[in-house]
Amino acid sequence: MKKQLQILIASDHAGFDLKESLKKYLREEGHKIQDLGCDSSTLSVDYPDYAYILCEKFDDQNELQRGILICGSGIGVCIASNRFKKIRSALCYEPKLAELSRAHNDANVLCLGARFIENDQAIKIVRAFLETNFEGSRHAARVSKLGR
Amino acid sequence: MKKQLQILIASDHAGFDLKESLKKYLREEGHKIQDLGCDSSTLSVDYPDYAYILCEKFDDQNELQRGILICGSGIGVCIASNRFKKIRSALCYEPKLAELSRAHNDANVLCLGARFIENDQAIKIVRAFLETNFEGSRHAARVSKLGR
Repeated sequence: MKKQLQILIASDHAGFDLKESLKKYLREEGHKIQDLGCDSSTLSVDYPDYAYILCEKFDDQNELQRGILICGSGIGVCIASNRFKKIRSALCYEPKLAELSRAHNDANVLCLGARFIENDQAIKIVRAFLETNFEGSRHAARVSKLGR
Repeated sequence: MKKQLQILIASDHAGFDLKESLKKYLREEGHKIQDLGCDSSTLSVDYPDYAYILCEKFDDQNELQRGILICGSGIGVCIASNRFKKIRSALCYEPKLAELSRAHNDANVLCLGARFIENDQAIKIVRAFLETNFEGSRHAARVSKLGR
């Protein structure tokens, strides 16, 4: 049986459409979703605002919680979210990277660039991110150094 | 005439070989390079250590300065470097992303995943990163929000 995860998701206007597709997929998979905006693909908003809303709400002590942040390139939300030491945010453009980000970096937030990946690819990336566990061992010492 | 830039570069063991190739290319292009390690592809080191060495040395008030950080996936050094509010670090896997990271996010550090890109592609990404200027305008307000 798959774990039911608690997923916080947010995007800017450029990521809105992909956010809507992913919510549908994630609900079908049985996860609990909290959508933190934005609410339109046409009203221009600032990506740091939505990244910060998600990071402030994010409970890194809850092992069932994951975050997904989307902007046009994924870069803006990745910078913004990694400002928080409780967050380990990974911009992934293929499933193998998402898998490594979990296995080696214990990433808890996935960043996606909506203008650079198709919906099908995004779903494969999300699936790899949600289904991979942290490996620990030699990676744990490195991850602990990220808590500065 | 091209600008001569001051480039700080660092990697873990997985990024060492790509670091050496890029140093050669960057020197041929006339840039000034400061290599902050590591010094071997075989001795295992921790990526946060090298990211932090570079970020601590990085002078974000110097408009001619850029950073390049390399690890196996690029994700570890991207998380570590974005812990510093003076750093805007972008993991790029294609030239278009590197261009956008400069034009829209005013990225000052480029992260590369040595196990995911070939040398030729890495050079194209680096070139786009070094040759693109920040666009300012509506992007400036967003970038200023990253300084938290």
